[in-house]
Amino acid sequence: MPKDKLYFGIDLGGTNIQAAIYNPAENKVVVRDGTKTRAQEGAGAVLDRIEKLCNKLLKKADLRPDAVSGLGIGAPGAIDIKNGVVLRAPNLDWDHFPLCEDLAKRFPFGVTVDNDVNVGAWGEYKAGAGRGYDEQMAIFVGTGVGAGLVLNGQIYHGTNHTAGEIGHTVIAGRGALGHRTVEDMASRTNMVRNLKRMIESNYPSIVPELVGGDLTLIRSKILAQAQEQGDALTLEIISDAAKYIGMAIANTVTMLSLPCVVVGGGATEALGKPWMKQIRASFEKHVFPEALRETEIVASELEDNAGPIGAALLAAERLG
Amino acid sequence: MPKDKLYFGIDLGGTNIQAAIYNPAENKVVVRDGTKTRAQEGAGAVLDRIEKLCNKLLKKADLRPDAVSGLGIGAPGAIDIKNGVVLRAPNLDWDHFPLCEDLAKRFPFGVTVDNDVNVGAWGEYKAGAGRGYDEQMAIFVGTGVGAGLVLNGQIYHGTNHTAGEIGHTVIAGRGALGHRTVEDMASRTNMVRNLKRMIESNYPSIVPELVGGDLTLIRSKILAQAQEQGDALTLEIISDAAKYIGMAIANTVTMLSLPCVVVGGGATEALGKPWMKQIRASFEKHVFPEALRETEIVASELEDNAGPIGAALLAAERLG
Repeated sequence: MPKDKLYFGIDLGGTNIQAAIYNPAENKVVVRDGTKTRAQEGAGAVLDRIEKLCNKLLKKADLRPDAVSGLGIGAPGAIDIKNGVVLRAPNLDWDHFPLCEDLAKRFPFGVTVDNDVNVGAWGEYKAGAGRGYDEQMAIFVGTGVGAGLVLNGQIYHGTNHTAGEIGHTVIAGRGALGHRTVEDMASRTNMVRNLKRMIESNYPSIVPELVGGDLTLIRSKILAQAQEQGDALTLEIISDAAKYIGMAIANTVTMLSLPCVVVGGGATEALGKPWMKQIRASFEKHVFPEALRETEIVASELEDNAGPIGAALLAAERLG
Repeated sequence: MPKDKLYFGIDLGGTNIQAAIYNPAENKVVVRDGTKTRAQEGAGAVLDRIEKLCNKLLKKADLRPDAVSGLGIGAPGAIDIKNGVVLRAPNLDWDHFPLCEDLAKRFPFGVTVDNDVNVGAWGEYKAGAGRGYDEQMAIFVGTGVGAGLVLNGQIYHGTNHTAGEIGHTVIAGRGALGHRTVEDMASRTNMVRNLKRMIESNYPSIVPELVGGDLTLIRSKILAQAQEQGDALTLEIISDAAKYIGMAIANTVTMLSLPCVVVGGGATEALGKPWMKQIRASFEKHVFPEALRETEIVASELEDNAGPIGAALLAAERLG
């Protein structure tokens, strides 16, 4: 990497936009900031907000636009990488939106896009917990559950540009309730829903106290507090979710014979080492063949920065 | 492909060895034959039997050994392709066996090896139902359930050489019986076991009549006969297995965004179109996103020949 080059890395989510100016040669986030997405105001308004955010970062870092060599952006949904088009992004209500072309008009450098989860996986591969493994998966557990695959040192997109939708794979295909996906069983959304239901059925828990009686306020941090204080109900629900995440990881490692899986996302960051330990135990129980128990199952190192750093690194790779 | 070239293709199984002389340019099986494996007699004896079988084929086709340009062989288990070593093959009781080196000493041409399921998938990709799709899976349902992946026009082996073990992925991870894999739910072995158990519990079925009262004689062909005659119990068991196979295919297509899946194996060949229709219906119900319902789910074209043809085609590709 040329040592002076800087890149914008943007993580465009349904709710928030996170952005950074990143120096790949020094693996250094020069400056970072965020803003709301407000997708309901339309794509043009979202692009205005991205541009404004980038200008704010330049100002903060005391840089001129031509000090930056390119911009990478991760967007939710199915992306046509080659043409820089967001094919379908339900979160943003975008359909065949030419993101790269429209964004590039606003800057004196090139723009490249990929799926937001893929971008996070790329960050962990190049600068995070997955360094050195040319085949790997990064799985992110939060509101939903998504994954990005790196195969042969490249992001694997699949023919239909949607590879990595691990949250929508079936893990509990039997029983009175019909089939259940990984997201149904193990997302933070599911953990919170189960916790609420059990509390409303009068199971004892300290969670109502932690949220001042308002169960709509349960977030990852509340789960983490209840976990730390040894709340039995919370521990059971967390451990159940970890079991399914471990199974889902085992399924992918069994299919793809991977040497490394990075686990990240809001729930993982909040629940920390005890959660990772449970995931790893479930993984080892379910993977095949036994030799694959050696696979590294590691927590994300970049956490919140995986998206912006991954996007900036993709820009460095693709735009030079 | 040079039009005169011929290759040996061998499918080495735990029970049987199938072999063919194949002409890739004309997509023609010149001659084929088989023998028993008898792995318990040791690796040397198995190699003797392969050599004898090859010489028999040459004689049948009235060819001299130097008329053949190479030999490809599919072997069960984890294979180190590069060095031609069978790392672990429980079916054969082989551990780090240098198959290519030992086999090449017996012939005036080169030898190449891959996993037997991968070889079948390669056959379907190059000369069978999966032609034209550079990303695809072939799944084979028989005694067990295995798959081979073609990604970017190449067999995908994974770091640990065991990719494609779809039969060992968890599909029913909840319930009193604990987690269940695809093989537990949907192999022919499982179908037969369920059928026996139900018949022994006095559920009405024509199957006892078809096997003259000896339930140990239930094979794929018996399942097919009972299916054709509309035996309600058999139809229910077959349809249940098809549901899980469809889910397993959906899981892989969801993860890898594949445009084509070939379905083969003894059970698939015997149960035919009604079975394929049920698999496809379950696949469409469970795949994500909706756009992937367009994925081709097609029955094997090469059937029994997928192994020998795939192995011969690999020899042509790797040995020239």
